[in-house]
Formats: sequence, structure tokens, C-alpha cells
Amino acid sequence: MDVHHVGIAVENLEAAAQPYFSLGYSLEAEERVEGQGVQVWMLTQKGSGTRIELLQSVREDSAVAKFIAKRGPGLHHLALATADIQAELQRLLAEGAPLIDPVPRPGFGGHLVAFIHPKWAGGVLLELVQTRP
Amino acid sequence: MDVHHVGIAVENLEAAAQPYFSLGYSLEAEERVEGQGVQVWMLTQKGSGTRIELLQSVREDSAVAKFIAKRGPGLHHLALATADIQAELQRLLAEGAPLIDPVPRPGFGGHLVAFIHPKWAGGVLLELVQTRP
Repeated sequence: MDVHHVGIAVENLEAAAQPYFSLGYSLEAEERVEGQGVQVWMLTQKGSGTRIELLQSVREDSAVAKFIAKRGPGLHHLALATADIQAELQRLLAEGAPLIDPVPRPGFGGHLVAFIHPKWAGGVLLELVQTRP
Repeated sequence: MDVHHVGIAVENLEAAAQPYFSLGYSLEAEERVEGQGVQVWMLTQKGSGTRIELLQSVREDSAVAKFIAKRGPGLHHLALATADIQAELQRLLAEGAPLIDPVPRPGFGGHLVAFIHPKWAGGVLLELVQTRP
């Protein structure tokens, strides 16, 4: 599974995007993901390659708000693309991976997504993203 | 600049690599980078796409050792590829970016690399990697 995007917890989307704009990224899409309590800016290099996902909390009790309260803004998660998220989750479950979402849920752009607890991957919060509809 | 790799601070390379092996990654190269006090495993998906760089400290005073002591293992930095690192650093310096390495230094695979202080990009430690020799 290739890297789909790198998720970054930010305090302010517009301010946080400036360095990436300077480095050649542009805003591909903006969306509010209610299930995660975040406003998202997806940044790309001319629409291709690994995306950078900026996440600003819109609820005090969101995972991103708690992350920033504890560790400050910064790298939040690593998302990997998969063609079949259900099959992948079943395989990981059989391996004993601690799935936060045993059942995938809608994420950015209507993609099905599922998170794996960071204790599985040495402190890294992994997200699976199904790239086909 | 596209994402070249995602750097992850780990306590043990072999243990930390297992989840990524399970997700389809394999070990592309291993190297000790003395200047950064780390042993590095570079992981890829069949030799293409965004790499995952696992970093294990080999010195108590390395940046990775200090990072883990403070925050635990996990996502450490985001590396972007550039064809001309000198030109890029000059441009960023003129913008007032706080460069950790105003002069690039040899990194993994003999590539010239330079880090930008995380205060510039909202808590994210950015690395530039020159992809041409």
C-alpha cells in the first residue's frame, strides 16, 4: 500500500498552509469531516503524488484537539492507500492488529477509511484509505 | 516538491519494520548516517512511491534519541524532494525560513539534505532531499 497522504494537526489552516504553498503545494480540496470533528485542507503538487492533509479541529473533544493539547501541532498520522479496505481490515484483524475502526467509515472525499491504533506501529497512527469507490 | 519519504523515530528497527512488512513494504536499503547519529532502514513498496524511513538512534545525544525521550517513538519528519537544494535553500532563506542547515549535508544514500526548523511549518520538521547527484 503506497502512502496516500500525511496528516498534520494544525491550529489554523490558512497559516499552516503557507509553508507548503511556498514549497509548491496548492489547495486541492477543502472539506468538513463531521465524524472526525475536523476541517480539512488537502494539498497536492499539481494534483499528483503524496498529498498533505491539514487538519484543524472544529470541536473541543475531537481527536485532533486532544492531540494538539497534549503534543502541540505537527505530524499526526500516515495514510496508506488500499484498493479493498474490507479485505485489508480482515487480514489485519487476523494478525491481531488493534483496529480503531473494525468497520470502515466515510472520510475525506467520501473515501472509506479506518485507523489502526498507534501501539501497533511503534507510535504511528496509521490510516487505511480505500481509493476506489 | 513531492514527498520523498516520511521519517519515523523507532526504538528498534527490526520490531518497528514488522507492521510495514505486513502492509507490503520491504527493506530497500540500510545505512548508518554518522552525522545524524542514526541507523536507517529505508522501506519501499516495490521500489517506488513514497518511502518510509525508520530511524534508530546509535548515540545518546542524537536528535532521534532526544525526540524519543521527549515524545516517544513515532512520526519524526517529512522529507520533500528537490532537484536543486542550494537554489531552494537560498529561496527559503530570502523568505526568512529558519534553516537548521543553511549548508546542505550528506544524508541517507549520499543525497544532500537540509532540515528546516519545525517552528516554520507548524511543528513539522521538514527535510529537503536533493534527488539528483
